[in-house]
Amino acid sequence: MMRTRPLKVALLGCGVVGSEVARIMTTHADDLAARIGAPVELAGVAVRRPSKVREGIPQDLVTTDATALVKRGDIDVVVEVIGGIEPARSLITTAFEHGASVVSANKALLAQDGAALHAAADQHGKDLYYEAAVAGAIPLIRPLRESLAGDKVNRVLGIVNGTTNFILDKMDSTGAGYQEALDEATALGYAEADPTADVEGFDAAAKAAILAGIAFHTRVRLDDVYREGMTEVTAADFASAKEMGCTIKLLAICERAEDGRSVTARVHPAMIPLTHPLASVRGAYNAVFVESDASGQLMFYGPGAGGAPTASAVLGDLVAVCRNRLSGTTGPGESAYAALPVEGMGEVVTRYHISLDVADKPGVLAQVATVFAEHGVSIDTVRQQGKDGEASLVVVTHRASDAALGGTVEALRKLDTVRGVASIMRVEGE
Amino acid sequence: MMRTRPLKVALLGCGVVGSEVARIMTTHADDLAARIGAPVELAGVAVRRPSKVREGIPQDLVTTDATALVKRGDIDVVVEVIGGIEPARSLITTAFEHGASVVSANKALLAQDGAALHAAADQHGKDLYYEAAVAGAIPLIRPLRESLAGDKVNRVLGIVNGTTNFILDKMDSTGAGYQEALDEATALGYAEADPTADVEGFDAAAKAAILAGIAFHTRVRLDDVYREGMTEVTAADFASAKEMGCTIKLLAICERAEDGRSVTARVHPAMIPLTHPLASVRGAYNAVFVESDASGQLMFYGPGAGGAPTASAVLGDLVAVCRNRLSGTTGPGESAYAALPVEGMGEVVTRYHISLDVADKPGVLAQVATVFAEHGVSIDTVRQQGKDGEASLVVVTHRASDAALGGTVEALRKLDTVRGVASIMRVEGE
Repeated sequence: MMRTRPLKVALLGCGVVGSEVARIMTTHADDLAARIGAPVELAGVAVRRPSKVREGIPQDLVTTDATALVKRGDIDVVVEVIGGIEPARSLITTAFEHGASVVSANKALLAQDGAALHAAADQHGKDLYYEAAVAGAIPLIRPLRESLAGDKVNRVLGIVNGTTNFILDKMDSTGAGYQEALDEATALGYAEADPTADVEGFDAAAKAAILAGIAFHTRVRLDDVYREGMTEVTAADFASAKEMGCTIKLLAICERAEDGRSVTARVHPAMIPLTHPLASVRGAYNAVFVESDASGQLMFYGPGAGGAPTASAVLGDLVAVCRNRLSGTTGPGESAYAALPVEGMGEVVTRYHISLDVADKPGVLAQVATVFAEHGVSIDTVRQQGKDGEASLVVVTHRASDAALGGTVEALRKLDTVRGVASIMRVEGE
Repeated sequence: MMRTRPLKVALLGCGVVGSEVARIMTTHADDLAARIGAPVELAGVAVRRPSKVREGIPQDLVTTDATALVKRGDIDVVVEVIGGIEPARSLITTAFEHGASVVSANKALLAQDGAALHAAADQHGKDLYYEAAVAGAIPLIRPLRESLAGDKVNRVLGIVNGTTNFILDKMDSTGAGYQEALDEATALGYAEADPTADVEGFDAAAKAAILAGIAFHTRVRLDDVYREGMTEVTAADFASAKEMGCTIKLLAICERAEDGRSVTARVHPAMIPLTHPLASVRGAYNAVFVESDASGQLMFYGPGAGGAPTASAVLGDLVAVCRNRLSGTTGPGESAYAALPVEGMGEVVTRYHISLDVADKPGVLAQVATVFAEHGVSIDTVRQQGKDGEASLVVVTHRASDAALGGTVEALRKLDTVRGVASIMRVEGE
């Protein structure tokens, strides 16, 4: 049943991921043809620097005119691995208009303009697939969108940024401070020269927006995601976490409210118990927990970045999109029918670990405990350590809303006996 | 774009899994309709005991005549959760003949007759999906078949039977013997009254056959899978494992040979290092490692059995099959183009942990070492413990073929100074 006319693929971008996509398309051509039911042919590669030698890619396929490539009209699938908003967005829209389906690894674009891109794909009856946009090689979009299509997902909790996990793992295992661990990550190539997108949580927030939208069948934009980076995490925080039997991870957390009528999405550092499977995710690996009504707890683990792993995800999508084209259909598109509101951080309910510097005199604990009680925040444990008239008070709360906790901290700061709030960290995964 | 004529589903079997499928179809009807693009309707439920009260299932849908149900001609999807070979096989074939697609959770049938059933589905242009047949709710078939369709899978290594993992975990954590741990598993409902299918590895072998076939795009029958149960694993084996920094798991292992020209599939107890993520899979959970050229190591973890988790997998397939029907297409069918031979156990290469009871006198170690050398099996470590003229010798080898190891052991047994071979266990996951 093999068709002999090949399906034509235009590759936009030929960096770390793109060059791996091209390499695998060549070396695994026979397997891809057998799995799709027709050969796939690399019809063009759009790059910025055409003079650079790219092993295995014939020079006559290389062009700097990406727009002309996607407008050719004979392209079946456009693979977009440029990244960033423009020109990727215009190129993808143009691709749909000219009859191509699209496979993208572009998390920033999907998080910002996913709805519009899906609408454009639908309008032209084309596919838009982007497994590679979240957690590299780890199958996550497809399991959420298809395997769990008959289930009700309530929570997605994961480590979706390898750079920050490398840094936090290093701080945890060596006692290093943030800057020292970042320097090592940079030296080893795990962090970019400007690490802002990773360490400030922008990258993870984009992934959280995509995951929340797919998991809850609703639209979640990048702006809906609460975001807190991990640059303020200190060696002292790790010491506190250890005392609690915890470690610290930068987590992306997407949750359905208990009444099911709204959702939240957030990225921030959090303590999680050492017994939680996410605690043992080392180095630059990613892992995502998914909790659903029927399936219970599932975990997906693997390399979250890198050329070859990301290319693996791109090629899985490429095979699916090519099959869809051969059978004249499209895969499941955007599913946003639930149209649930996305609540702000104030509505998030979790536990907190708060370190206070207080005066070491009688009555301080009673004062502090009263403030918590007045704000409806119930205390789980409290530990006081004093020396030389100064003391530190570590309070771990039961579950409370972020708004209630915020009010509590504001009131604590006003107490004469509270010299300062040394740290506040959420406690997750319990 | 919602179609109003519902898709009709016939449910064959209404036990632990079937009743959950029916329940979720009712309680999540609106979500399923939105995700499929048309409502789904339970059109009939075939059972053995019609008099049993089944909450939420109208009595007029219940029938004992499964054949008549699948022959009705208006059924869109048959969900088969009866299990076993017959009548499941005939019913599925009849379903295809009468225009229905099939979702099955039947590992035994798929492992034995997968090729014939796929051929029947293809002949009639229908879908055959069976995510629930392997590892319950854990998405595994779809990731292997679709997400990794552009990659080359080299190894699938996993814990795919919850009953035996519960027993082995109990032996590991409490020092209990096999019988004691089995009794507890039975009392808690994790083991059936006749635990043979689980403890002798038949259940895991069926899953290994299915996984190997999909991972390597070739046909692997149940008979091709080497199978060794875990009833001989002793508390002493766990003590030996601990000394090596290992634990013992019943593993299903599917491997592509290093030259890529053949595959193997096997189920047996094995030592794995405590640092391996599979070592920390507790209780009745399942987890599967997948190693591929481009994606590297992925792990999928979750509940491997149970009514609701298995129903989650069935419903994910049901949504996919319904979508395919609405768009007049079918999903990826069997992919066995690679047609690789399945080698026997002799060709498997791994490491071994061997305990020998030997005479405690000079020259024994030299004799034993000579036998290993003569069979081309290289020794990694050896440890000797002696008392009262008797000694035990623990040898851990480097990688060697099962055939070479077998020859070594046979020769060792012939040595006068070797009183007995106390245990042989494979060492995996390094």
